[in-house]
Amino acid sequence: MSDWREPWRLARERVTDLYGRHVGEPADALPTPALVVDAEALDRNLAAMNAALAGQTARLRPHTKVQKSPDIALRQIAAGAVGVAVASVWEAAAMAAAGVSDVLIANQVVPADKVNAAAALAAHVSLTVAVDDARNIEALSAAATRAGTEIGVLVEVDVGMGRCGARSGPEALRLAEQAHAAPGLRLKGVQAYEGHCMLVPDRDKRIRMATRAMDTAAAALALMRDQGLPASTLSGGGTGTYDITGRHPAVTELQAGSYVFMDAMHGNLVSGFEISLTVLTTVVARHGHTVILDAGRKSVGIDFVSPPMLGHDYTARYFAEEHAMFDTDERFGADVGDRVRLVSGYAPTTVNLHDVLYAVRGGQVEQVWPVFPRGAGHGGFLTALLPG
Amino acid sequence: MSDWREPWRLARERVTDLYGRHVGEPADALPTPALVVDAEALDRNLAAMNAALAGQTARLRPHTKVQKSPDIALRQIAAGAVGVAVASVWEAAAMAAAGVSDVLIANQVVPADKVNAAAALAAHVSLTVAVDDARNIEALSAAATRAGTEIGVLVEVDVGMGRCGARSGPEALRLAEQAHAAPGLRLKGVQAYEGHCMLVPDRDKRIRMATRAMDTAAAALALMRDQGLPASTLSGGGTGTYDITGRHPAVTELQAGSYVFMDAMHGNLVSGFEISLTVLTTVVARHGHTVILDAGRKSVGIDFVSPPMLGHDYTARYFAEEHAMFDTDERFGADVGDRVRLVSGYAPTTVNLHDVLYAVRGGQVEQVWPVFPRGAGHGGFLTALLPG
Repeated sequence: MSDWREPWRLARERVTDLYGRHVGEPADALPTPALVVDAEALDRNLAAMNAALAGQTARLRPHTKVQKSPDIALRQIAAGAVGVAVASVWEAAAMAAAGVSDVLIANQVVPADKVNAAAALAAHVSLTVAVDDARNIEALSAAATRAGTEIGVLVEVDVGMGRCGARSGPEALRLAEQAHAAPGLRLKGVQAYEGHCMLVPDRDKRIRMATRAMDTAAAALALMRDQGLPASTLSGGGTGTYDITGRHPAVTELQAGSYVFMDAMHGNLVSGFEISLTVLTTVVARHGHTVILDAGRKSVGIDFVSPPMLGHDYTARYFAEEHAMFDTDERFGADVGDRVRLVSGYAPTTVNLHDVLYAVRGGQVEQVWPVFPRGAGHGGFLTALLPG
Repeated sequence: MSDWREPWRLARERVTDLYGRHVGEPADALPTPALVVDAEALDRNLAAMNAALAGQTARLRPHTKVQKSPDIALRQIAAGAVGVAVASVWEAAAMAAAGVSDVLIANQVVPADKVNAAAALAAHVSLTVAVDDARNIEALSAAATRAGTEIGVLVEVDVGMGRCGARSGPEALRLAEQAHAAPGLRLKGVQAYEGHCMLVPDRDKRIRMATRAMDTAAAALALMRDQGLPASTLSGGGTGTYDITGRHPAVTELQAGSYVFMDAMHGNLVSGFEISLTVLTTVVARHGHTVILDAGRKSVGIDFVSPPMLGHDYTARYFAEEHAMFDTDERFGADVGDRVRLVSGYAPTTVNLHDVLYAVRGGQVEQVWPVFPRGAGHGGFLTALLPG
């Protein structure tokens, strides 16, 4: 491959070739199942998040694992975000290739192939990664030194989720000192993800838990500063805590992502944003009030919350791979061949099932946006960044 | 697009360009998460299914929604299958473009865009579809007549699942009579899917239920024959009933698919086949006996059965999007950077998350096979089959 950006260029070209014919068509005429973005609602969500963070210490660094769309990420940045957070080095490469200049891999980068790809990518973009392991810091330092690049580092602190992250302030401090001394790395601060708070339904309890979690992270950051380390960033949070973590005085970056689309899960947790993402489906069979749609586990994520119909309070009886079955009632007018919209239960795993997002304005398809890369593949960036 | 086969050609070219570098590499060196097929175990599974059906009325028509791989479908046909079953017109087009000559869409084809695509596709392949609705039969007949093609028809009979299908023998007979009289269509028989039996853990109960279900389907077929209709096919079944439905004297086609890969769900239900599909992952963090892998809901389907580690009896504590967390014990030797293999809980929703299957023989990557198309997109076949 002649250029490290090539996989993104090819992905866009492929989506334009295969799905571009739908631009200008009415959204309701799209072949189903189709992932449809109301671009007007999306724009309002971007503005609403900016308004929510006005006057706060925290700036927005949206996590783009939600939409896996460089096109939407560039809109988020145009609307004021400082950069993006991503889940993998391949997602980072896609964002960088599309023109995002500041990318945080909010995750451990392991093993060697990904470490080497990150070091190569750092030549083209301001790249930061999360670390929680001394050997991983050594590997990142060695790779960046070999590549002649610099990788920013946030020490991840476990604030109660029990997944990744240093288990104590002193452990985080030791990792920070190591990263600060390591050639090829630049210590920037702390990452902490209060994932265990996101799904707490009781709002007061969520406030208490998330505040305590970010206090823990802030204490680890203070410990680093007390030792004279150049640690200024505290990055964390999500849409479920956007008005808690986003208002914490020590937090400098909010990693919210789901606010762009919303989904049934987040709709149960927070207000202030609109549903901009739906899955357009077709009724393929109807037996009395039992309705079968042509969307299932291969086109709608069923994690956390069963995807509801937009504008109805019916709950699905089940989702098979290519079918959803709803029990409706006499109010339901759609028959075989008619269109029905589903709200995603959880947007990140819904988007990941699709090749393309259809951006709709005024009822017409305005653009087609690639979903790229999928979580389960490097999308060619391994080859593009590390040829030979 | 100059040729209706073009989307498949492009998909193969893209996968070769982006993932072909891994051919010849040791499988254990693949970037993770990676979907790995043990080609030797796959071949043994193909032979085992042939042996299981020897002397039976039923011939194998594997459902390829499981692997979404034309490459594997061609191997299944070379090993004796009469053709393939698929879930959608787009999957049918991919199989036909790759050279499969006999394709059953084991599903209702709705609405007009898919009906028209099916009619166009029938010019290039022996195509059969399932029907359960008089208006759908009219639409298929009109489209095939316009396209100057012929579409085979199986009347779907509901045998207890309560999803699609005619609800009674007389209703099925009426649909069969309509299809037989409709220009552009050719009545072939009955489809019945005893999906409600597949997951019944008690084997004796499963045998009773599946046998009763296929008796119901056979009665509907007999009703058609009694009226002089040319109905000779009875198509149904799956891997969970391969040695029940596959031995039913009236069944002519067995739609088993999961036997090629097996998965944890089917491993609990049937014997006779090996696990040939695993998801290769990397340990990204370890805290005592708690191990975090770089595979989650975006790379492993978590439907029905939680994906276990190959060769271990540990159960995952949870699957996040990009992480799986296992509680292991002192027997577990893998550390950060080491590889661990997961067995898919349910293969069809696992494969659907990936771009590519790595076929491995003797520990080395022998070929890369595209997963194409994904359930949630037409993959360009709408444009290729219906230009302009």
